Amino acid sequence: MTIRAVVWGENVHDRENETVRSLYPDGMHGAIAGALNADPAISATTATLDQPEHGLSESRLRDTDVLTWWGHKAHGDVEDAIVERVARRVWEGMGLIVLHSGHFSKIFRKLMGTPCSLKWREAGEKERVWVINPLHPIAQGLGQSFIVPETEMYGEPFAIPEPLETVFISWYDGGEVFRSGVTYRRGGGSIFYFSPGHEVYPIYHDPNVQTVLRNAVKWAYNPAPALTGIHQAPNVPVDEAPEPIVEKGPHLHKPGEAGLR
Amino acid sequence: MTIRAVVWGENVHDRENETVRSLYPDGMHGAIAGALNADPAISATTATLDQPEHGLSESRLRDTDVLTWWGHKAHGDVEDAIVERVARRVWEGMGLIVLHSGHFSKIFRKLMGTPCSLKWREAGEKERVWVINPLHPIAQGLGQSFIVPETEMYGEPFAIPEPLETVFISWYDGGEVFRSGVTYRRGGGSIFYFSPGHEVYPIYHDPNVQTVLRNAVKWAYNPAPALTGIHQAPNVPVDEAPEPIVEKGPHLHKPGEAGLR
Amino acid sequence: MTIRAVVWGENVHDRENETVRSLYPDGMHGAIAGALNADPAISATTATLDQPEHGLSESRLRDTDVLTWWGHKAHGDVEDAIVERVARRVWEGMGLIVLHSGHFSKIFRKLMGTPCSLKWREAGEKERVWVINPLHPIAQGLGQSFIVPETEMYGEPFAIPEPLETVFISWYDGGEVFRSGVTYRRGGGSIFYFSPGHEVYPIYHDPNVQTVLRNAVKWAYNPAPALTGIHQAPNVPVDEAPEPIVEKGPHLHKPGEAGLR
Amino acid sequence: MTIRAVVWGENVHDRENETVRSLYPDGMHGAIAGALNADPAISATTATLDQPEHGLSESRLRDTDVLTWWGHKAHGDVEDAIVERVARRVWEGMGLIVLHSGHFSKIFRKLMGTPCSLKWREAGEKERVWVINPLHPIAQGLGQSFIVPETEMYGEPFAIPEPLETVFISWYDGGEVFRSGVTYRRGGGSIFYFSPGHEVYPIYHDPNVQTVLRNAVKWAYNPAPALTGIHQAPNVPVDEAPEPIVEKGPHLHKPGEAGLR
Repeated sequence: MTIRAVVWGENVHDRENETVRSLYPDGMHGAIAGALNADPAISATTATLDQPEHGLSESRLRDTDVLTWWGHKAHGDVEDAIVERVARRVWEGMGLIVLHSGHFSKIFRKLMGTPCSLKWREAGEKERVWVINPLHPIAQGLGQSFIVPETEMYGEPFAIPEPLETVFISWYDGGEVFRSGVTYRRGGGSIFYFSPGHEVYPIYHDPNVQTVLRNAVKWAYNPAPALTGIHQAPNVPVDEAPEPIVEKGPHLHKPGEAGLR
Repeated sequence: MTIRAVVWGENVHDRENETVRSLYPDGMHGAIAGALNADPAISATTATLDQPEHGLSESRLRDTDVLTWWGHKAHGDVEDAIVERVARRVWEGMGLIVLHSGHFSKIFRKLMGTPCSLKWREAGEKERVWVINPLHPIAQGLGQSFIVPETEMYGEPFAIPEPLETVFISWYDGGEVFRSGVTYRRGGGSIFYFSPGHEVYPIYHDPNVQTVLRNAVKWAYNPAPALTGIHQAPNVPVDEAPEPIVEKGPHLHKPGEAGLR
Repeated sequence: MTIRAVVWGENVHDRENETVRSLYPDGMHGAIAGALNADPAISATTATLDQPEHGLSESRLRDTDVLTWWGHKAHGDVEDAIVERVARRVWEGMGLIVLHSGHFSKIFRKLMGTPCSLKWREAGEKERVWVINPLHPIAQGLGQSFIVPETEMYGEPFAIPEPLETVFISWYDGGEVFRSGVTYRRGGGSIFYFSPGHEVYPIYHDPNVQTVLRNAVKWAYNPAPALTGIHQAPNVPVDEAPEPIVEKGPHLHKPGEAGLR
Repeated sequence: MTIRAVVWGENVHDRENETVRSLYPDGMHGAIAGALNADPAISATTATLDQPEHGLSESRLRDTDVLTWWGHKAHGDVEDAIVERVARRVWEGMGLIVLHSGHFSKIFRKLMGTPCSLKWREAGEKERVWVINPLHPIAQGLGQSFIVPETEMYGEPFAIPEPLETVFISWYDGGEVFRSGVTYRRGGGSIFYFSPGHEVYPIYHDPNVQTVLRNAVKWAYNPAPALTGIHQAPNVPVDEAPEPIVEKGPHLHKPGEAGLR
């Protein structure tokens, strides 16, 4: 079965900044979607900030298995209602791949519950991405490490919860380290954060980076039906309790009443 | 050193519902603060929804080591700005104890990044709270299990991230189970969720429950100075890199420019 | 691709105890292998304690993708060298499903690093297995909970490390609870422990239990090549350092010398 | 209350290697114990491989709150019975700090359940230890990072389970990274692994390293009574079940019989 991926791109620097435009004539989202579509198991399309509902309507998200997210300059322009909508789909089982400066996106911070802050330096220095977890599906097809020749440094402390799995840790010329590939689960959704991807360097054209992206989409895909019930807090009436019980004590709620929230 | 605890109470049912009022003449927050103050290592005061800034001004939070949170009917009335303020203090190192129906509070859902939904039934049934982690500081002074004679059932699936530590799991007369005591860390802050505490039963007068509350406050206390830098994403200029590097490549940011967010 | 599963059975009570023999005329391993082979994606064979090398020769393990383990009476009779061999294959990426009384097997205790102790009672009571993690691959095809009508009670505290994922928690008639389905990763290997399976009840003939077994084998399967290097601690000579460095300081090891262990 | 620490040292290179002997005239264990005793909250003594029972008799371990472990050349000479004894005390609540080449000690591998392998290079290169978790008790009193001027490189992949908490990650001159400070819990015992400490460099005389050691001992200390019951798997007879049940079904065990293991 083909995995339906949507590559979300902010598409601001892609249009406004000449360096970015020349590196990514189809936008970074276009380059990422192209990399994903090189795998026949994935069918990737794109969505951008400037589209109605940022390209992420209810119906489109319902038909999305895995969403990738790249944003930088305009995190604040993403509507809260769309962020909530994306979070709900993640909880229902949609995979989410958050890229680079997406660490500060509304959706990533919402799902992590932490500031997601870090140190940074834009000096075109070398990054060496080490595979910490060699049998993890996201690390397949890579060597022990790979190099991003020119990168923006992202340095620890990275204010995230302790990961479910640490897949990559990066070494930088300038002396810092960074947990550059980490996984989480939130509700039914699998989440992968991957830090390389600064827009003024050709990072999404790098074969190793593209391998990571394809692996991540396949890893984050969950074929199970959407867990739409996860948003409700159902009452279990006394006469439907798994074991027979006799009701007692005082009550706050009237019989059949919906819970408070 | 005395731990400065603030017991936050919604204080709605405490005033409006006759059963709750008679069980908790000083409000549930009053009963909880009283239980905490029975330990000389803790100095607890209270704050409620109806106070200015819900009793949680910037300066008061700055002087709070551990906050406990009980809300039920009026989660939606808690101002988003106050929720953000509390989250920031948690990330800086303030402990947070979330109680019972607080699973659906804005602050808990914000810190978990999940829906925090569950099943429920208000039938005064028996809950047996099992100690899963007998040497955990929060479980000290308890037996292998303790009984809450009349409880509101909270049942799995509880839509939370996999806990850092599972301290308690509850068994119910009616056939359900629930992870009734779980811990997390978010930034510098330690978080404990504890499910017993429905307002129409005298649960916060129970000696075992009070032991858990005191233990939890002491466990969540971090004496280290507030990690106020966790909210920033500082630039590390090239000439301050830990290792000498030579700048290269194109740039998005001008020298000394603040990062985007 | 077909997953090559080996179902290991102690095969002592299966032969010696009349109740077990009548429930499982082909041994419990036979019943489990039959359940697995009902899925065309799995090809299961069996191995037993009484066979040479307990049926787990080096070459057979090399060709095993996922091993399931049931033992009870004769944990002590499993040779340490075979336990070490199985552990090494797990670290290299072989999946391992540990069943019921296998909690006290040498292999499970070795991989957990804890006593793996628990409470127990053999009274034919009812167990209700709750799905805690509804979108987990191991829980697919089940309802919110399922019943094992007659079970041996296994009760908390279960002395295991905090799980990677908690999939099932069980409720018992007699008042106890148990984390009945938990996952771990050790090296490249995925591990699932599942508690139902006492030999004097027909538990491995239960359709829900069989669904769990098939799901678990598929979940634990890792198609990546064996991580045979995980057992070594390779020296990285100075002239092969990823970044050029100049050697300095005193030495314990002569150039090219193997490390100590 | 004073924390009773025992500093275990292999004491082989300390005596046999002239470089080590001159750096650590009282042995590395002597230097570590001295560093710990600089904190009035800790009372540290030493134990070495060459002593009867390696200095770790049953009664001494019973009176030990936290054990630190340094070994390198003679892991194989540590008796299995003593390793088992130490593991049992960890499970009962004793803290354990494993240092440097102790990653390959029998006790650490037993508690981790993984090979604990890594890459290494002895070239006196620089190590920069980054604080990943700035409010962790083990990181108090340190800056954002500290330097070990001459170190043995330990490089990823480090074959350990995903840590409970990642406290430090190291950067090396030669291009590698390493999770240099990680925590675990095994039964009641808190475990911290810290990688700096190669014997031909004066690392245990370093003030930052000494701060880490003192912090770690205080963090690993659990004042609760020893959890001696963790080794047993008690039967809960039918007439002592928390909830009244009626026995049914066939039996493997006779009433009152001990469980199998």
